[in-house]
Amino acid sequence: MKRVALLAHDQFPHFAKTAVGLLRYSTFDVAAVIDRGHAGEQVRALLPDVQDAPIVARMEDAPEVDALVIGIANVGGGFDEAWRPDVRAALKRGCTVMAGLHDFLQDDPEFAALAEEHGAPIRDVRRPPRGLTVSQGRARNVPATVVLTVGTDCAVGKMTVALELTRAAQARGERAAFIPTGQTGIMIAGWGHPIDAIVSDFVSGAVEQMILEKGHDHDWLFVEGQGSIIHPAYSAVTCGILHGAMPDALVLCHEAGRAHSKGFEDFPLPDPPAYVDLYEGLARPLHPARMVGGALNTHSIAHDDDARAAVQRYTHALGLPATDPVRFGPDALLDALS
Amino acid sequence: MKRVALLAHDQFPHFAKTAVGLLRYSTFDVAAVIDRGHAGEQVRALLPDVQDAPIVARMEDAPEVDALVIGIANVGGGFDEAWRPDVRAALKRGCTVMAGLHDFLQDDPEFAALAEEHGAPIRDVRRPPRGLTVSQGRARNVPATVVLTVGTDCAVGKMTVALELTRAAQARGERAAFIPTGQTGIMIAGWGHPIDAIVSDFVSGAVEQMILEKGHDHDWLFVEGQGSIIHPAYSAVTCGILHGAMPDALVLCHEAGRAHSKGFEDFPLPDPPAYVDLYEGLARPLHPARMVGGALNTHSIAHDDDARAAVQRYTHALGLPATDPVRFGPDALLDALS
Repeated sequence: MKRVALLAHDQFPHFAKTAVGLLRYSTFDVAAVIDRGHAGEQVRALLPDVQDAPIVARMEDAPEVDALVIGIANVGGGFDEAWRPDVRAALKRGCTVMAGLHDFLQDDPEFAALAEEHGAPIRDVRRPPRGLTVSQGRARNVPATVVLTVGTDCAVGKMTVALELTRAAQARGERAAFIPTGQTGIMIAGWGHPIDAIVSDFVSGAVEQMILEKGHDHDWLFVEGQGSIIHPAYSAVTCGILHGAMPDALVLCHEAGRAHSKGFEDFPLPDPPAYVDLYEGLARPLHPARMVGGALNTHSIAHDDDARAAVQRYTHALGLPATDPVRFGPDALLDALS
Repeated sequence: MKRVALLAHDQFPHFAKTAVGLLRYSTFDVAAVIDRGHAGEQVRALLPDVQDAPIVARMEDAPEVDALVIGIANVGGGFDEAWRPDVRAALKRGCTVMAGLHDFLQDDPEFAALAEEHGAPIRDVRRPPRGLTVSQGRARNVPATVVLTVGTDCAVGKMTVALELTRAAQARGERAAFIPTGQTGIMIAGWGHPIDAIVSDFVSGAVEQMILEKGHDHDWLFVEGQGSIIHPAYSAVTCGILHGAMPDALVLCHEAGRAHSKGFEDFPLPDPPAYVDLYEGLARPLHPARMVGGALNTHSIAHDDDARAAVQRYTHALGLPATDPVRFGPDALLDALS
């Protein structure tokens, strides 16, 4: 499955987190993005630093592809009925449909029937595997150095930072692996447990399983974090990853200008040092994790000079080395880890 | 469903947490405990302060009952095949079978067929309801004072303390409600969400839903906590409850003599003040919660004088009022909350 169309109606680019992640990091050949609001435009006109593709209004207008991928990671992970005609069209063409929703497309009677009729596979990457169980508290014993990207909030770039660090370490000749924990990371890496869709008792155990699987034949594991340890909705996911992965080092990810929790405007974000205390304090009794640096997402800042100034302010506030690893490269951060 | 048999093979009393909770707090009339290791004995000979019942070796030896309840809350929540003959016998008698396992009895083909054939209902109380979603961060707005029992570890008495405080507050004429979050609490209260069996993204949302449901027509909500915020396996559950419930006050529950995490002997428990900092620190950015007192489970201490001395040591270590609410009554703790 190499050639894909990415469904991103009305959300592209900045609210279609999965589509953007796949355009930037996956090995998929993106033949089209489907967003009725931008039909006729090109991806690169909206997002200069990823692979280019035409934007079309609907699946019927997409060229031949192996798969349609739902490129939107919405709050709650529900299926949006506005996507039904495109999913239906893809299945009728015999395409694989890949989704990372909490609502599983395989459980939709119409889609299940179409998939059967047209031999079109449905892949719900957020459906957790069977056989998961509780953690045994063993991740701290692996020889690899485990690095976890943690956040001041959701959707600040934790997956991106883990991927950038993995690639940079590999480019230096290190045995480095990316540990995916969310739907986009799983689609990019082709494996992984969808942590936020796993029952809470087994969250740490699922993360531990991945660390034990990869931690013996790698020097570095870069674990994709989720949410924030003080997120009003997602902190359980964050906490389970922290204690399941038992990282040696942490990187604090933040988005420039984000002052409140996204979608929770009544919840102001504390200053960066408060997060350092919370994450390190919570890790310490099980396995000490040191915050080694910061990653600032500056995509909303137009000019590099302004972005550089924002990074300087973040570095100062955090009291640790920081950069925007997408805009300025991940080397400064990787150096801080080494 | 009033008259029940409690299955507790080889675990009664101290490792059959659910059976003991039901004997102490439920409105069930317990007609028998099933434990082949203690067959022929009486419950009260082993556990003096709960309702009495005969202990029998197998379901066939139990008197007429409405239901068989699985009284064991084992790690991982798997079905133990040693229980199969008793469950089979109960279904053949047309009894309800109630279980709080992660493995659902309804999904077992033999049990499903027997249930159908004999008109015997199976109730899997840990099966989460449909329609849950992410938290909206609104629990802090309810008029009720929300009290959460938190722990130094799993299985230290958090449910018990919440139940004791609820009853004591009700006895004082207050409008108080118990908020169940685990299988035993749900069986006792007859409602509630099984938080550790809910996908991690929706954990805080499920707790929030219960707080919003009860928080407007009560003065006090006593929320059953789970696990510990630094438990190697269960901290995700704990963290999601803390941020979903947004409590005003916390009670730190501990078991006398517990020095390591139960079943995780490589993980020593920190001193009580470390827990105060962790729980209060993690709550503060969303809604400040004050640790108001401690509850010490002294069931392993034979003599009251020794238990009193243990409570004094715990009070001193914690720097807050503390008691064993089962042994010495919950009044001191309720006073600290008021």
